[in-house]
Amino acid sequence: MVKADRRGRAPSLDAVAGNGLLDRRALLGRGIALAGAMGIGSATGAAAEPLQDAPLEDAPWSKAFGEVTPPLQTPSRFEKNVVRALSNPNGEFRNSHARTPHQLINGTITPNSLHFSINHCGIPDIDPAQHRLVIHGMVRQPLEFSLETLSRYPLVTRPHFVECAGNSAGMFSNEPIQASAGLIHGLVSNSEWTGVPLSVLLDEAGIDPKAKWLVAEGGDAQFLDRSIPVKKAYDDALVAIYQNGERLMPGNGYPMRLLVPGYQGNMNVKFLRRLKAVDQPAYTYFESKNYSQILPGGKTWRFHFLMEVKSFITYPSFGLHLKEPGFYAISGVAYSGAGRIAKVMVSADGGKSWGEAALQSPVHDKAFTRFVMPWRWDGGPAVLQSRAWDEAGNVQPLRAEFVAARGETKKPVATPLAFPNQHYNSITSWGINAKGEIAHVYS
Amino acid sequence: MVKADRRGRAPSLDAVAGNGLLDRRALLGRGIALAGAMGIGSATGAAAEPLQDAPLEDAPWSKAFGEVTPPLQTPSRFEKNVVRALSNPNGEFRNSHARTPHQLINGTITPNSLHFSINHCGIPDIDPAQHRLVIHGMVRQPLEFSLETLSRYPLVTRPHFVECAGNSAGMFSNEPIQASAGLIHGLVSNSEWTGVPLSVLLDEAGIDPKAKWLVAEGGDAQFLDRSIPVKKAYDDALVAIYQNGERLMPGNGYPMRLLVPGYQGNMNVKFLRRLKAVDQPAYTYFESKNYSQILPGGKTWRFHFLMEVKSFITYPSFGLHLKEPGFYAISGVAYSGAGRIAKVMVSADGGKSWGEAALQSPVHDKAFTRFVMPWRWDGGPAVLQSRAWDEAGNVQPLRAEFVAARGETKKPVATPLAFPNQHYNSITSWGINAKGEIAHVYS
Repeated sequence: MVKADRRGRAPSLDAVAGNGLLDRRALLGRGIALAGAMGIGSATGAAAEPLQDAPLEDAPWSKAFGEVTPPLQTPSRFEKNVVRALSNPNGEFRNSHARTPHQLINGTITPNSLHFSINHCGIPDIDPAQHRLVIHGMVRQPLEFSLETLSRYPLVTRPHFVECAGNSAGMFSNEPIQASAGLIHGLVSNSEWTGVPLSVLLDEAGIDPKAKWLVAEGGDAQFLDRSIPVKKAYDDALVAIYQNGERLMPGNGYPMRLLVPGYQGNMNVKFLRRLKAVDQPAYTYFESKNYSQILPGGKTWRFHFLMEVKSFITYPSFGLHLKEPGFYAISGVAYSGAGRIAKVMVSADGGKSWGEAALQSPVHDKAFTRFVMPWRWDGGPAVLQSRAWDEAGNVQPLRAEFVAARGETKKPVATPLAFPNQHYNSITSWGINAKGEIAHVYS
Repeated sequence: MVKADRRGRAPSLDAVAGNGLLDRRALLGRGIALAGAMGIGSATGAAAEPLQDAPLEDAPWSKAFGEVTPPLQTPSRFEKNVVRALSNPNGEFRNSHARTPHQLINGTITPNSLHFSINHCGIPDIDPAQHRLVIHGMVRQPLEFSLETLSRYPLVTRPHFVECAGNSAGMFSNEPIQASAGLIHGLVSNSEWTGVPLSVLLDEAGIDPKAKWLVAEGGDAQFLDRSIPVKKAYDDALVAIYQNGERLMPGNGYPMRLLVPGYQGNMNVKFLRRLKAVDQPAYTYFESKNYSQILPGGKTWRFHFLMEVKSFITYPSFGLHLKEPGFYAISGVAYSGAGRIAKVMVSADGGKSWGEAALQSPVHDKAFTRFVMPWRWDGGPAVLQSRAWDEAGNVQPLRAEFVAARGETKKPVATPLAFPNQHYNSITSWGINAKGEIAHVYS
């Protein structure tokens, strides 16, 4: 948390890395640093404008009675471009992706309207009064739960990201695709989820100690099923029934979904209708074929569930035009399926030098952490990158080492975001030219 | 955070207070407690149903391709009742209140669609490219900020509640009004706000040390202005430009608002267009007359900004019908303008005995904290209450002492929520009869 301190020490405006990166402690101190960096009298350009002499004229909206207060608020008409990017806008008989526009949002919460959604058979219109969750298999007593029943249980609330294993697949292109942060990385979102700990429900059914897996099945026409380790169920899994305070969005699993924090998106089975306790995994299509990680040489990793430590810069990023040199607060999100984010380093010179970013607190487990890095752009070429570490000691890999270990790059294909590999968690680079234009580059 | 522990000690099912309140430690342990409290073989009724022999028939939504994935997600049609209650649904030429339906949501975040909103002159349709914030008065250099300019500053993200001073005014009725938690307490909501620390902007303008107040003015036709202590501006005030990740809702101040965490709602001036540094308060209508707290005897408190420690139960609450005896997790929200919530006590017997509730962690400063209390309803009459303490040592007052100190109660009037007094932060009581019906009572 950035907090002004009226008696604070003089903050530093020292550069900590090449190409204008400033010490993050500039964010903690009082005035001088940011006034110098951003404001009046700055050698590198001002953010705020000195007030002109001309009197302020009242705007039209200051002179007339406004619009009616609606039952449900929606964004301003001036924000009509803040929508998800759709891969199948006409609902053709195939799968459909809706990506979160990360370059247009901020903070850590993804608004429900903008949470990513992938649906293989459209979005089911489920009547919550009819829907049931069944826990069966190797249990003492099979049980059936309605949404109303689950509401009587002690609910827990936690922020967590959910990320599709195929998020950022466009980064497997051998040429950097020219697309926004949302188009590239928009299959990850972060919500405050509220639900019943799965452990409570399994205990109530009396799960057999010999049961090591749960086969989770969704209630839509896809009948998606995935094998979930019982160990994970007892660690931090939820049956989620609220998302950012309200009932789940239909595209995010209404009326209930499994939440296995930090694991591949589609293991968080939506429209959850059955959990079967078994002694071995089911080897379903979505774990044996479609979500098995292909490695160089053709081997695959099976049951590679964890979404590893990752970060990307959302501001400034592709699609924004820097109009003038001067101060910019670089900002982005970092997250790890292995726990909390420990550190984010930022570079403005394509990885030659790095400075440590400030992390928004508190830092949550398996959730978005926003980082901020003060930067003074001198108007010359720059390449912005971020690199994250998690509390388990994992580090976001550099691109060369990632590609060597995890998969060959391919030529761009007709649908530029469709690449066969998964689990991309390496670095994203935004190249800025002297005009302030931002391109996606490999560096 | 409730977390199962496979090797945990046997949790307690001990009663901690009268009428079925259980030890909150039951939420922390493994299985037995909740299985006993909720599930199979419970003497007091089961929440989950044993699975019937009949095979599960696939529902219609399991057999057909679903709906098209939209650019912006909206709730299921089965949630059409989850809307704000409007005091002026037709946009008549007067003020308008939209209340958050607390009895229908959960967690801590209020979804943007459901954040409360009060507008005295309708909702302005502001073009963010034209809107400017001016900082002037006792400053070295008056400055002007656009939304785009503010986006270059280091932004901070924090959850905070905003509460209208008139929230819960219906509790000044001398008979308990029969209304939901949202109708009674719906003028408070909680969001993750992202914005620029006001201290940074004041420092950049070079505020005169003799300036002790800021007159904040909104840009809609109301021209609301309020005097804000400079001390508060340097403590934790923000110029907020995002709300739960997206741009502010039009009814919540788009494109920018002042955020003075924990202070009366309308000091968080929406559509913020001017901040004038001055050496004494402006004594505006909204601080001299309309938001001066009336005390018994006719005296008033002026500049009584703080929204004090408060809590209310949202589940179970008015409007819900308990169908059967058995286990219920009592849940609600607690918050304080003075800091973090330290403790919430719950009673099921109208205040005769109390047990300590579990608090959702982490507990944030000046933000909603959800509490949960395990309860086994025996089917007899019960009166549910909650009472909160904050880290500054303040306690939510009992009703009798509150009414004596803060204002006489009145007869209900035609508009049952319109009472002349403010800052109600005493206890709410939900009375449950043997049929499971829930009434609002004074106890």
